[in-house]
Amino acid sequence: MTERAANTLMRAARLPVVLGTLGRLLIVLAALSAPPALAAWSQASNALGLRLAVTAVALLLVGWPVSRLRPLRADEHDIQWNEALAVTGLAFLLAALVMVWPLTAAGLGGVDALFEATSGITTTGLTMLRGLDKADPAVLFLRAWMQWYGGLGIAVLTVALIMRHHASARRLLETTGEQLTDAGARGHARRVSMVYLALTVIAIGAVWMTGLAPMDALLYALPAVATGGFAPSDQSLAGLPGATIATLSLLCIAAAVSLPLYARLPHRGLRALTHEPELIALLGAILITMLLLSAIAALASGLPWPQALAQGFTLGVSAQTDTGFSTVAVADLPATSQVVLMGSMSIGGCTGSTAGGIKLIRLLIIIRLVQLALRRTAIAERAVLQAQVGGARIEPSMVTATLQLLALWAMVLLTSWLAFLALGQPPLASLFEVVSATANAGLSAGLTSPELHPALKLVLCADMLFGRVEVLALLVVLYPPTWFARKRNP
Amino acid sequence: MTERAANTLMRAARLPVVLGTLGRLLIVLAALSAPPALAAWSQASNALGLRLAVTAVALLLVGWPVSRLRPLRADEHDIQWNEALAVTGLAFLLAALVMVWPLTAAGLGGVDALFEATSGITTTGLTMLRGLDKADPAVLFLRAWMQWYGGLGIAVLTVALIMRHHASARRLLETTGEQLTDAGARGHARRVSMVYLALTVIAIGAVWMTGLAPMDALLYALPAVATGGFAPSDQSLAGLPGATIATLSLLCIAAAVSLPLYARLPHRGLRALTHEPELIALLGAILITMLLLSAIAALASGLPWPQALAQGFTLGVSAQTDTGFSTVAVADLPATSQVVLMGSMSIGGCTGSTAGGIKLIRLLIIIRLVQLALRRTAIAERAVLQAQVGGARIEPSMVTATLQLLALWAMVLLTSWLAFLALGQPPLASLFEVVSATANAGLSAGLTSPELHPALKLVLCADMLFGRVEVLALLVVLYPPTWFARKRNP
Ligand SMILES: [K+]
Ligand SMILES: [K+]
Repeated sequence: MTERAANTLMRAARLPVVLGTLGRLLIVLAALSAPPALAAWSQASNALGLRLAVTAVALLLVGWPVSRLRPLRADEHDIQWNEALAVTGLAFLLAALVMVWPLTAAGLGGVDALFEATSGITTTGLTMLRGLDKADPAVLFLRAWMQWYGGLGIAVLTVALIMRHHASARRLLETTGEQLTDAGARGHARRVSMVYLALTVIAIGAVWMTGLAPMDALLYALPAVATGGFAPSDQSLAGLPGATIATLSLLCIAAAVSLPLYARLPHRGLRALTHEPELIALLGAILITMLLLSAIAALASGLPWPQALAQGFTLGVSAQTDTGFSTVAVADLPATSQVVLMGSMSIGGCTGSTAGGIKLIRLLIIIRLVQLALRRTAIAERAVLQAQVGGARIEPSMVTATLQLLALWAMVLLTSWLAFLALGQPPLASLFEVVSATANAGLSAGLTSPELHPALKLVLCADMLFGRVEVLALLVVLYPPTWFARKRNP
Repeated sequence: MTERAANTLMRAARLPVVLGTLGRLLIVLAALSAPPALAAWSQASNALGLRLAVTAVALLLVGWPVSRLRPLRADEHDIQWNEALAVTGLAFLLAALVMVWPLTAAGLGGVDALFEATSGITTTGLTMLRGLDKADPAVLFLRAWMQWYGGLGIAVLTVALIMRHHASARRLLETTGEQLTDAGARGHARRVSMVYLALTVIAIGAVWMTGLAPMDALLYALPAVATGGFAPSDQSLAGLPGATIATLSLLCIAAAVSLPLYARLPHRGLRALTHEPELIALLGAILITMLLLSAIAALASGLPWPQALAQGFTLGVSAQTDTGFSTVAVADLPATSQVVLMGSMSIGGCTGSTAGGIKLIRLLIIIRLVQLALRRTAIAERAVLQAQVGGARIEPSMVTATLQLLALWAMVLLTSWLAFLALGQPPLASLFEVVSATANAGLSAGLTSPELHPALKLVLCADMLFGRVEVLALLVVLYPPTWFARKRNP
């Protein structure tokens, strides 16, 4: 098709559809404010409780009428691809914005509250709060809770939204190996929710059984399941019992696996997991990261090997699953360790999980393509070799999507890094912070603090949002034809 | 085709073919040693002249019998794709190695001489020599000459080698828009040589006319045409007349344009250039780099705007064309400028030129794919949009090749950066040096010096070689099935 012909087929997003969907999101956000509001009242955090209650009422008052919006024509029910992406992009921004005012009750300034809310909802885990060990439990619960439902949103809501558009869903989910039909979309969302809830219950129980108080177990388990990384302590995991740290690490690994895989366990047994190339890649990537980090700690920093391995495991899992828990301050690690962590965070976990980064499936695609390119050099010209990952053919559209994502990531990282350097921040720590935010990982080389320049806090907020929706969904929001293309023909 | 079926079709490279081709290369290298040998005798640099002469004789003695090697079967004349790539990968390594001993006559140690030779032959331009302003003119001519014939090799020899294999040539050249047949390969190589020679004559004349002594004109013009960047001065271009600097910059731009385009000038006139998207992209990229560098110099460093623009132009051209000339020490520039330069060097010039980097055509492909992805979000699912650059369709194989190159680049950069950090080098300067070497650009943030750890000198040598052959050709050399796959069936 020529570009001119294609242009005549372009459709702007329909405002009633976008607003209607976002309106329903506001109602959900109002309902999600109830648990932290109750927690706040029970802890006598009246200011926080009041703001959460007022916010919930406001969300209902705005969300209810807006959610009634429908397209003008009765036959236009299906959501367009640009509408679905714009809703996804705007959903995380909106969910962060509505929590800014309540979070200022925790003593945060406006920009810091926005940062904390964005870091929560995108399950990144970078934090502006200090003195967490003595902080109001209600505030700590609100942070953990935001990460938990942010993770649920990533796993379920965006998928459900986009899967209403059948072909679009295929485009989004083609890398998970799921064969989804329009009819199965709701069922899929329900199954993923059940998996997420089951993981949550198991996590809280497991962490509690390692000897933590129930409230602490909750505050560590919720961010772990969401690969979020908010911790109720300035030292993250440092100081916790070894069993708790190990349990949390295993939970993070479990949460970084494609959640739909678990839904297949009842039918296919463990084969559903053991034959999944992305899961094997996850374990392999964790092992490599752990060994590199341990070797650097033992050889360069002189740590005894058992300690080096324990530290490498915790940190390697944290980086590869993009959780962001840690037992050491990243700023104190050698530069080599920091670069290894950047690489690990950038790659991240499995598609269909709450982990960030470019996802392991993209790494597998790249590795297979390079293998294939090498093999092709030894084969006569006419032979056609097909690239596969785990028995599934690598379609040209997947290659294109991977290249796009890599290029957009490079653009986001370069631009953000330049902003940090322009304001005089140190080069390596700046790059680390930018990579950690874009990968929704949450490890910090020390620059994320209330003292950071407000402009750079906003840069990191943008990075967290761009990373969370794999850049494209937010570009769609910023792409003028999404809002101003010609209307649908009659 | 299944992998098993494909495996039975794999053919190892035939040693007689690879060695025979490399033998012919040795003879060419012997002939290329004559001009610097004559220059050395004429300058009474007897040690250098003697070593060059001995090297030439040795090359002939080894090269002549080896060049007679042919495949055992008379009907197997066509060079295989893995043979062509292995020869390309080994050619640059070999061409560097044979000049190590002669270069030690300039007072360089073994590793430093290897570094200088690699930097010359890959037209990178990083240098281990100090006190160039007072150096032996014969040594300066040898360096310039190596860059010049390295550039000729890139433009012609590799193309000619690989084009003997018709389908392979298409794979290599598909991004240049050239439609080449097997029969046209020799003609193509001849045309590109003529363009290169014409550019060289014009360059020497133009630089000489700006007022330089003939020898200096030669020493600046040869590296400029090769986008090599070796200069006969420790200060590179600093101190030269403004007209000379401007002339050299324009020559670098001319040399970073796809050379086959010039061959079309007689038939198609200026339209051959003005309608070429990669050339427009080159000018656009130079303009953007120049404006960013100038703005940083004016706003952050307080340079007056006219000076800032002049410096930005010279440096922007140098980075984008991967030449590596400069009028300032990069180490003295703000971190932001260094990162802008890294981005510019990484992208580089046009395919079919001697410039390095991932090439502008890859940037154009990525930009078009992102544009298309955005446009597709607004179009109903069944519409098929084709991505084009300059009227030519972007084939899936081009997308795959771009993704491969980007990923291999990331791997090379990350590994090399880690090596620098492990040996305690500063993060930003290390990354700069690694990017500059891999892009064959040659700007230095100050780490390239005789004092650098020998292991890191070798890392930079590897980067220069990997970058020069776009990684894959050297991976083929390191890929065991290239040498040990099963033999051709009868
Ligand atoms: K995280
Ligand atoms: K160069």
